[in-house]
Amino acid sequence: MKCDIITIGDELLIGQVVDTNSAAMAQMLARIGVDVHEKITIGDTREQIVSTLRSVSAEADLVLLTGGLGPTRDDITKSTLAEYWHDNLVRDEASYRNVERFLAERHLEMNALNERQAWVPSRAEVLPNACGSAPGMWYEQDGVVYVSMPGVPHEMSRMMQQEVLPRIVSRLVTQRIVHRTLVLAGIPESRLALVLSAWEDQLPANMKLAYLPDAGVLRLRLTAKGSKDEPVEEAAEAQLAKLRPLLESYLLGEDVQRLEEIVGLHLLAHHAMLATAESCTGGNVARRITSVPGSSRYFAGSVVAYSNRVKTEVLHVSPETLEMHGAVSRETVLEMAAGVRQLLQTGYAVAISGIAGPDGGTPDKPVGTVWIAAASPEDIVARCFHFPPDLDRQSIVERASNEALRMLLGVMPQH
Amino acid sequence: MKCDIITIGDELLIGQVVDTNSAAMAQMLARIGVDVHEKITIGDTREQIVSTLRSVSAEADLVLLTGGLGPTRDDITKSTLAEYWHDNLVRDEASYRNVERFLAERHLEMNALNERQAWVPSRAEVLPNACGSAPGMWYEQDGVVYVSMPGVPHEMSRMMQQEVLPRIVSRLVTQRIVHRTLVLAGIPESRLALVLSAWEDQLPANMKLAYLPDAGVLRLRLTAKGSKDEPVEEAAEAQLAKLRPLLESYLLGEDVQRLEEIVGLHLLAHHAMLATAESCTGGNVARRITSVPGSSRYFAGSVVAYSNRVKTEVLHVSPETLEMHGAVSRETVLEMAAGVRQLLQTGYAVAISGIAGPDGGTPDKPVGTVWIAAASPEDIVARCFHFPPDLDRQSIVERASNEALRMLLGVMPQH
Repeated sequence: MKCDIITIGDELLIGQVVDTNSAAMAQMLARIGVDVHEKITIGDTREQIVSTLRSVSAEADLVLLTGGLGPTRDDITKSTLAEYWHDNLVRDEASYRNVERFLAERHLEMNALNERQAWVPSRAEVLPNACGSAPGMWYEQDGVVYVSMPGVPHEMSRMMQQEVLPRIVSRLVTQRIVHRTLVLAGIPESRLALVLSAWEDQLPANMKLAYLPDAGVLRLRLTAKGSKDEPVEEAAEAQLAKLRPLLESYLLGEDVQRLEEIVGLHLLAHHAMLATAESCTGGNVARRITSVPGSSRYFAGSVVAYSNRVKTEVLHVSPETLEMHGAVSRETVLEMAAGVRQLLQTGYAVAISGIAGPDGGTPDKPVGTVWIAAASPEDIVARCFHFPPDLDRQSIVERASNEALRMLLGVMPQH
Repeated sequence: MKCDIITIGDELLIGQVVDTNSAAMAQMLARIGVDVHEKITIGDTREQIVSTLRSVSAEADLVLLTGGLGPTRDDITKSTLAEYWHDNLVRDEASYRNVERFLAERHLEMNALNERQAWVPSRAEVLPNACGSAPGMWYEQDGVVYVSMPGVPHEMSRMMQQEVLPRIVSRLVTQRIVHRTLVLAGIPESRLALVLSAWEDQLPANMKLAYLPDAGVLRLRLTAKGSKDEPVEEAAEAQLAKLRPLLESYLLGEDVQRLEEIVGLHLLAHHAMLATAESCTGGNVARRITSVPGSSRYFAGSVVAYSNRVKTEVLHVSPETLEMHGAVSRETVLEMAAGVRQLLQTGYAVAISGIAGPDGGTPDKPVGTVWIAAASPEDIVARCFHFPPDLDRQSIVERASNEALRMLLGVMPQH
């Protein structure tokens, strides 16, 4: 089955909004064994929507569209689709009641623009929108299935899960695709590729390995394909069993996407609590840890000590340390980690202080210099990182956050 | 000029990595007046790269590609491009020295895979990579310009700025595009659309308004186009002068993308410092504020009080308050805001406590219930938000963060 995704919106084309929808949709589709063949982003113009539909329908079996279903006049997806399908719009009563309910909950009145949202092409199977006012549409024409969904990420996400995926599974899927992911750190991509060369050579034709380096962490993704009744999972696992010994201690975790999930699993296993003391990362490590549901079971909190005053008064870093060694130093992060562990009464702590730029660098400590300390009940270690000065602020914060999470894993038992 | 972007990588197609490159490139292109016509994401297969190049070259004048230039065997963009252009690969000495330098800085040795990175199609104009080992390529063939860049975001970004944009401006650009953005809150999209209907009707044909709602904040984007010597900026500003009076107090800022930038500008103007006390947002407000360069001039820090112990011991919320009213209550966030203001000695503070889910909700306080307090030197206010229970954890955190920043603006003079 060939599946294409079309995301519609001028804001995506000019880069004002990053398209997260197509990645979220692709992840959900991967889980039910549907491979996305192509993703296309186009603007809110009738001509472009029609010409893109024409070109993808020649090859695709399933076309998922998001965006352009809102009430304002730049939203033209629905009327363009009706025209493309040679269909006319009719008012759908269930959708009308949903718009009424949606507006009532928000203490808003119905107007002509909202009312238009309840109109759908006459032959469409209407997909209810549980969190918004624009209904989705499932449409079959000339052997191609079209699904049109709202562009608001959580509305699309809910509609995919509740309405679209079940229909795809029961009506369209015949193939199985299995993705397995290994998370590594500490070995460069090109060196690992040489180590794995012989193993890659012997992979069967229905499997493929990809290297995904990102801010100091390397993910390996093994993809295996087969028909619905082949033992694809087992075959992939058999290959991984041969792969694991080659990865030695570089392997941090499997089938989790993110370091913060691995850290969380370890803390849970050790019944331990964590605190963070952050300067240059500005709360990013805390945000990543708390983005995992259930993190309150192992995360006490954080002190974001952006000013030196907070470092001394709240974390009890000694003014002499700051004076003699500076805020970006081994001594300061060791005292920050010890201070936050003491203050928040946790077993584990991590502290980060550095220069994320673009300003604030000195010849001695250029932009990209970051000190990190990690503390366990038994141990405390500190390390200096020199991230390439050509990285931007956000990249330095992300890399420092990754290294902080890795150092935490390093002071935990079994690592 | 028609510009297409092609991003290449299986990790993008299966949604393992969100494609931020195409948005970043589109933003940079918009600034020099280049409109992106279409963005296409495809996998790392020779057939797909070739067929996509064939189909876009029929219409596009400029094709920007990212990805697939790494050293491992899943990276096939360069060899496929050479084949598509009927060219052969030759070793580029400057690129070879750059690979040597890159590896030496990282204390790595050259191997056969790295060495391959210095080979480029013989007729390509080589674009040096200032932060990585893979060179970029500028290639002109049959009236179409192709630019191939690495997929690593900061490598692509630097190469765009230093090598690609200057060449586009001097060799290709003839048109001007101006984007102006207004940030609003407090009015629903459909109501505003009715208010602006007459103004939209009188817009000249070269201008277009788009509505971009996102987590409680609404951005309006006016796009104006013209030739290089038309007064496009002035014409757009003349339209905005008519628009502003219609927006009343809903208008929060202009030509900034993000609420945290607006908050930062106000704090700077008032020579004031800010602190945050965060429970359910887990440091996200601090992270957003510190993502703005120079934020150390107005941001002291944050206490992420995930556990109740931290609320009482560090922020001095009284145990009786927690006992009587609960952690998610008016009384608690008022004490959190007062506590963090006192602790970090700032004029302004914001405190957030709520239930981000998926667990932790009660009939009384379901998932999505969030209390927020904002304090200025003169005033302190608290408000309860009930975000729709169908939102996911991340969406609730983002909405609560937006509301916290808006409430901060509300307690500042002039708002």
